[in-house]
Amino acid sequence: MKHLLTMNDLTISQIHKILDETNKFSKGMIWKPPHPIFVSNLFFEPSTRTKLSFEVAQRKLGFHVIPFEASTSSILKGESLYDTVKTLQSIGVQMVVIRHQEDRYFNQLKDMNLSIINGGDGCGHHPTQCLLDLFTIQQEFGTFEQLKVAMIGDISHSRVARSNVQTLHRLGAKVLFSGPPIWKDEELSSYGEYVSMDEAIETADVVMLLRIQFERHKEKLQMSKQEYHQSYGLTRERMRQMKDKSIIMHPAPVNRGVEIADELVECERSRIFKQIENGVFVRMAVLKNAIEEGKGYGITYKKREFA
Amino acid sequence: MKHLLTMNDLTISQIHKILDETNKFSKGMIWKPPHPIFVSNLFFEPSTRTKLSFEVAQRKLGFHVIPFEASTSSILKGESLYDTVKTLQSIGVQMVVIRHQEDRYFNQLKDMNLSIINGGDGCGHHPTQCLLDLFTIQQEFGTFEQLKVAMIGDISHSRVARSNVQTLHRLGAKVLFSGPPIWKDEELSSYGEYVSMDEAIETADVVMLLRIQFERHKEKLQMSKQEYHQSYGLTRERMRQMKDKSIIMHPAPVNRGVEIADELVECERSRIFKQIENGVFVRMAVLKNAIEEGKGYGITYKKREFA
Amino acid sequence: MKHLLTMNDLTISQIHKILDETNKFSKGMIWKPPHPIFVSNLFFEPSTRTKLSFEVAQRKLGFHVIPFEASTSSILKGESLYDTVKTLQSIGVQMVVIRHQEDRYFNQLKDMNLSIINGGDGCGHHPTQCLLDLFTIQQEFGTFEQLKVAMIGDISHSRVARSNVQTLHRLGAKVLFSGPPIWKDEELSSYGEYVSMDEAIETADVVMLLRIQFERHKEKLQMSKQEYHQSYGLTRERMRQMKDKSIIMHPAPVNRGVEIADELVECERSRIFKQIENGVFVRMAVLKNAIEEGKGYGITYKKREFA
Repeated sequence: MKHLLTMNDLTISQIHKILDETNKFSKGMIWKPPHPIFVSNLFFEPSTRTKLSFEVAQRKLGFHVIPFEASTSSILKGESLYDTVKTLQSIGVQMVVIRHQEDRYFNQLKDMNLSIINGGDGCGHHPTQCLLDLFTIQQEFGTFEQLKVAMIGDISHSRVARSNVQTLHRLGAKVLFSGPPIWKDEELSSYGEYVSMDEAIETADVVMLLRIQFERHKEKLQMSKQEYHQSYGLTRERMRQMKDKSIIMHPAPVNRGVEIADELVECERSRIFKQIENGVFVRMAVLKNAIEEGKGYGITYKKREFA
Repeated sequence: MKHLLTMNDLTISQIHKILDETNKFSKGMIWKPPHPIFVSNLFFEPSTRTKLSFEVAQRKLGFHVIPFEASTSSILKGESLYDTVKTLQSIGVQMVVIRHQEDRYFNQLKDMNLSIINGGDGCGHHPTQCLLDLFTIQQEFGTFEQLKVAMIGDISHSRVARSNVQTLHRLGAKVLFSGPPIWKDEELSSYGEYVSMDEAIETADVVMLLRIQFERHKEKLQMSKQEYHQSYGLTRERMRQMKDKSIIMHPAPVNRGVEIADELVECERSRIFKQIENGVFVRMAVLKNAIEEGKGYGITYKKREFA
Repeated sequence: MKHLLTMNDLTISQIHKILDETNKFSKGMIWKPPHPIFVSNLFFEPSTRTKLSFEVAQRKLGFHVIPFEASTSSILKGESLYDTVKTLQSIGVQMVVIRHQEDRYFNQLKDMNLSIINGGDGCGHHPTQCLLDLFTIQQEFGTFEQLKVAMIGDISHSRVARSNVQTLHRLGAKVLFSGPPIWKDEELSSYGEYVSMDEAIETADVVMLLRIQFERHKEKLQMSKQEYHQSYGLTRERMRQMKDKSIIMHPAPVNRGVEIADELVECERSRIFKQIENGVFVRMAVLKNAIEEGKGYGITYKKREFA
């Protein structure tokens, strides 16, 4: 794993290895790279959680973080993503975390001699979010086999959905979908079943709410926020119909009062802030793996500089 | 002192303790926290001095500083300050310094499990500015008892005035006010006396000029900058009427030629850049105190992670 | 060299010393300053290469980098560059790297008690770019004597041209110019000869393409990008007419398909990304020199703080 671009890059055994390491980091494991690592986080879309989570993880591992701000970079002078990343590589950056609005932006970065970690591409993938969701589920239930995970909301524009559905399917979980028909996703339908809100809520072990990305998707949802909440949001009434041990997840930021009632965000069933906490440990594990498996690749070719 | 929100949080003996520690830091004291500290500076308003001063102080103390830019955060997706700070707490940030345009923004952050240092709230408070002003005065005069401090200018919109007036009063100093009648502050009037510019200048030990915050207050001042300078600015003529040992202070940024004549900003009586220099030492003392007195609270609950 | 403002600040022997040190850094030399260094990079214009290159160099030397964002600083409240830099000095920053849109902005910073490294001023100077160009040429040819360097494109608005031409002349190289007549520079003409594109391409050892700064210069170029490329760009045909061992340079960011054909940017003759790589080592050498020769000046006067 020199890069981590989509969950499909990882075998099931690699996924389990990362989750194991995540668990160790969550219990206080200390690990430092064998030589100085220079990393830069290129976020071309707004982010708090993912960016800061990587920033904390990198510092806990002792990396040097080179600050990059898209809004003050030569991107403003028309420089391409390719030339920007190639420049970073040239100045000695060995690893980049990228969030970019373009689906599969990383296709244009194939021949780079540094490690690329995908922090979210367009409506495509978000592998570290998927891994932290998996870790949170594993922490709760110990296994994925036969678990029922209901994804509710904007399936078609969610890179969280895309990354999670196929992986959960590979790991033996059963995926249910619910939400406005306009946001159905044909491609993902083969991995799970569309059901009514009632069925989703009553049978799922994990109720995974997806963010309504007002700022992203273009089609108009023909309902108000209040109407959405009544039809597809997790209200107090719906929460009461959940199974005894089932949990609530959401990738955040939450639209309080839309996907979920305000007062449920921090309720006992909710793992929303636990997911965020786990995100740091997952990213530590991903960064460690990228370095350990990147031998002969980007990560090591600068080694002599620091001899 | 797990939080420092307003000067009223501090007893007189706590204030003296911080000023003592500030003095030690200004003389070269080295202190490092007993375990790694992750801190983030959330500035929702423009700042050079306060933000950079905290950044330097934090690095001198060996903290890990997690960069936060409001303009590229999920605040843009509508995330609230509460959810943003709760997210930072979840990823392992143990302390935040916040500047925010809303008066008493910290009321909504009551139950956070991290340490909050107020870097300025709306027209409300700015405790570390107050402490650095106090330290600069103490450095000069050794005591606050019976000192006359004249505050001149925009009293009503100044969080510097608000923080300083009550504290100086508690410490035994005598506060005078002068400036345009439109900017009188009824609430603060009980702590000091409104006098003419002549009286303020001629009797004060400390002439504390307040910034005209063109970018903040809404009421129109019915005079030009030149007229303000003639009526309420520190001109060379007025400076000559000051007492022998009295000094000039200003929280900066200075509007040169408005609150004070351009050529007086760095004159012998001026402590304006000395205040900035002292700001770093005060903030080191404040951060140290927050950690030492935060036992059992935010600062320590992550300890095992770094064991 | 407490400051590095223009190449004229450096004697020929100082230039050779920096190039020697650059060479050592490029071969893995480790050097750390004798006491903690606090540095800040003030970039008032977009930049990727120069800013990040300094950021990496500073971290490799173990400096503390204090983040500064013009867009969130008190510059927004009307604070001057002078007061901003004086503020940084007051909080303990011992060195600043500045890029600013104003020609010779540093004239207003004469009496500062810190070290100023010019990262580019208006259409004026860009000394570290010049030094990295020199190093790249020296790496290739071993000497500057009798080398022919052709500068092609927007001569009059290029701070790269300005910094390079006079220095190359001092070092014994021969400079040729080519490009649109509207961008001739009378002042620089005394250091080199204007020739046709054919002559420039066919006789030069170094073909140095200058960026067309669409975002900077005001006069309209009376041709399309395609027409510019045909008339003054490095096409595949022109590249074939270059001498056997001659090389291509460009300060970047490149307008692909304008100054140079897209497919030539990374061709065998191109040193474009090599220049960027060398930039880090040159900046390490420049920073080291500023500290070592800054004795008694800014760099050392804060020493006691860290005793």
